[in-house]
Amino acid sequence: MAARNAFYAQSGGVTAVINASACGLLETAQAYPGRIGKVYAGRHGIIGALTEELIDTSQESAAAIAALRYTPAGAFGSCRYKLKGLAENRAEYERLIEVFRAHDIGYFFYNGGGDSADTCLKVSHLSAELGYPLQAIHVPKTVDNDLPVTDTCPGFGSVAKYVAVSIREAGFDVASMAMTSTKVFVMEVMGRHAGWIAAAGGLAHETDADAPHLILFPELPLNAEDFVARVDTDVKAHGYCAIVVSEGIKNATGQFVAEAGTRDAFGHAQLGGVAPVIAALVKDRLKYKYHWAVADYLQRAARHIASKTDVEQAYAVGRAAVELALAGKSAVMATIVRLADDPYRWAVGEVDLAKVANVERKMPRDYITPDGYGITTACRRYLKPLIAGEDYPPYRDGLPDYVKLRNVAVPKKLAAAFKVG
Amino acid sequence: MAARNAFYAQSGGVTAVINASACGLLETAQAYPGRIGKVYAGRHGIIGALTEELIDTSQESAAAIAALRYTPAGAFGSCRYKLKGLAENRAEYERLIEVFRAHDIGYFFYNGGGDSADTCLKVSHLSAELGYPLQAIHVPKTVDNDLPVTDTCPGFGSVAKYVAVSIREAGFDVASMAMTSTKVFVMEVMGRHAGWIAAAGGLAHETDADAPHLILFPELPLNAEDFVARVDTDVKAHGYCAIVVSEGIKNATGQFVAEAGTRDAFGHAQLGGVAPVIAALVKDRLKYKYHWAVADYLQRAARHIASKTDVEQAYAVGRAAVELALAGKSAVMATIVRLADDPYRWAVGEVDLAKVANVERKMPRDYITPDGYGITTACRRYLKPLIAGEDYPPYRDGLPDYVKLRNVAVPKKLAAAFKVG
Repeated sequence: MAARNAFYAQSGGVTAVINASACGLLETAQAYPGRIGKVYAGRHGIIGALTEELIDTSQESAAAIAALRYTPAGAFGSCRYKLKGLAENRAEYERLIEVFRAHDIGYFFYNGGGDSADTCLKVSHLSAELGYPLQAIHVPKTVDNDLPVTDTCPGFGSVAKYVAVSIREAGFDVASMAMTSTKVFVMEVMGRHAGWIAAAGGLAHETDADAPHLILFPELPLNAEDFVARVDTDVKAHGYCAIVVSEGIKNATGQFVAEAGTRDAFGHAQLGGVAPVIAALVKDRLKYKYHWAVADYLQRAARHIASKTDVEQAYAVGRAAVELALAGKSAVMATIVRLADDPYRWAVGEVDLAKVANVERKMPRDYITPDGYGITTACRRYLKPLIAGEDYPPYRDGLPDYVKLRNVAVPKKLAAAFKVG
Repeated sequence: MAARNAFYAQSGGVTAVINASACGLLETAQAYPGRIGKVYAGRHGIIGALTEELIDTSQESAAAIAALRYTPAGAFGSCRYKLKGLAENRAEYERLIEVFRAHDIGYFFYNGGGDSADTCLKVSHLSAELGYPLQAIHVPKTVDNDLPVTDTCPGFGSVAKYVAVSIREAGFDVASMAMTSTKVFVMEVMGRHAGWIAAAGGLAHETDADAPHLILFPELPLNAEDFVARVDTDVKAHGYCAIVVSEGIKNATGQFVAEAGTRDAFGHAQLGGVAPVIAALVKDRLKYKYHWAVADYLQRAARHIASKTDVEQAYAVGRAAVELALAGKSAVMATIVRLADDPYRWAVGEVDLAKVANVERKMPRDYITPDGYGITTACRRYLKPLIAGEDYPPYRDGLPDYVKLRNVAVPKKLAAAFKVG
């Protein structure tokens, strides 16, 4: 059987380690030249497949590919573009197959979250229906940690580490100044629908006195009165109160607090930023001096403080995707399987994409303390190994020496252009 | 001559490396038991001296003192408390001397910025006037980098590194997503009066395509029309535009942009946050999708990504303070002297406090490009060595293992209490 080419695309919001998955995939594919020819990457993700804008990864040096392991964000470009259902926009799926056929692509590796898992499954279905031989393998990635079955999603552990490290450091800062300065510090983190990232901040809270004293989860409606009372209690007990708040918290009527605002003067809805709203609430009721931070993209791009566990798992699922393909699998996702909590042991597994697509994993209620402001022992046991270990990038002149690829285009073979969207 | 005790206090906003100065000072003092008895630290800075709340640093283990080298923030507590002039509140200065006399303190080490340099000088004057033998030595510290004479202020290099690393990482993130998502990213950094910290972001900009594309300095009034046009140019040229903005930028009439707001609907002045104001300006005029981050305390507490040069200099000025005292000096500040740019070589020097107090170092205009949005080669030459090298703290369970001191109180000797302020 002649070697066939592969197509790899990055999908959705990027992470500190999605390129580590690319690295694992590319280095492994190179080890099987008799089975896998070239690996083409989609420029800007799946859009690159639709528009036939393919990148020839064989034009990169081995050193550049190796450097992907420690380079954050999406080296080939990613996109927020969800293919519609097969019935609604069959033309897009047919176009994908047309491009794959033109470039003899026998392997489709899609690196993303829930939406891309769904797309990957649909592409697998259509290729079968059209009699086009294609193995479609999903490579998990999402900072939100909301994919089912897998123990965790590569990308999450590094955000978790960033958040826990940052709130610990800010806590030390505020503690030392609180007597005459800031008494309430609010740090906003990502997680519009699930509190996994906010929960990770709780890892820094090893004693009652440690930051963060309070966590606001999107799973629980904000009770402003109760929250303000808790802030006051913490300031009186510890001299200050450090709070981690998820961007996605809602009020009792189900509105996003960041959009609803808690004071009229403030809010232009699309500006976002729940931290200043929470800070203003505290200031109004308690008059304490406050500061707030919004980490935004810094948290998911922070490769400089990536979790070693996360980097290794990201690489491993990239490698596993190739191995699954070579084993003849299709319509599957590589997973992380937890074998033991402490010491943490894990292996790579697989799951049918039908069990992954359109299933969102929520934080279990018993991972949040009964009062709603902290994480339980069970949650800590789950999260702790995911941030373990450091994996520093190389530095040049004091800055991380991240790689930029050449991203050489593959000559187009199709006459027709294709309009996306 | 019998050994006399020393008093050490941390002043003003803390940094990632002020404890490294404490470490250098304490470890050096211990090496001269015949000259220096105990080193007492002020609980919450100079307030601890006024209220006679002293901490006996000899109660800490050698390991705990050594751990100060890699622990951010102020281990003994700091304060924002400026002693008034001698004429206005002589009672406070006399109280200091009274406390020093009660505890046989012959060395006063004050670790802070411009205000504390001024206080240190005044204490020196009053002790001479009162015939109380005291050597007053200032140890420089400030993220603002605004002390004169010294090549840089310990604390600045680490903030500078954090800002440059963060905007590089966020730039990679935005670049990979810009085709279908965020096109403008705004990162707010500290620096109310001087643009040193914002300028440091410019170190990440090694080619035209690199983030940050634009820096907004507090030294130059914001020209909204010109700025918006530049953002558009960068988006069209590079696909996105990454901006570093100093919290202290002002508009043409001299108001802080964070307070003035550029749209009525937005601003409650004391909420702070210039990044959302700039983001809203861009959104209004150009309609681009944007994101913004406010690093706030995360930047000055980020010991996990401290500059090795900064840590070494912070330790060195702490050590030098003791050596200056032992050499009989008083009313001086330890300084960093630059011997060469590349490779960077530096030594520790000293300067009379009279030349430091009430002198603020501004960014030279020729460190900012003529267009006002970038840093010049001269600025880069100055800044580059200050972020060089990494100096990682030890980790435990995935988190930096920072020390918390026991902070054992020295028994009070004075009957009278003293009311501060």
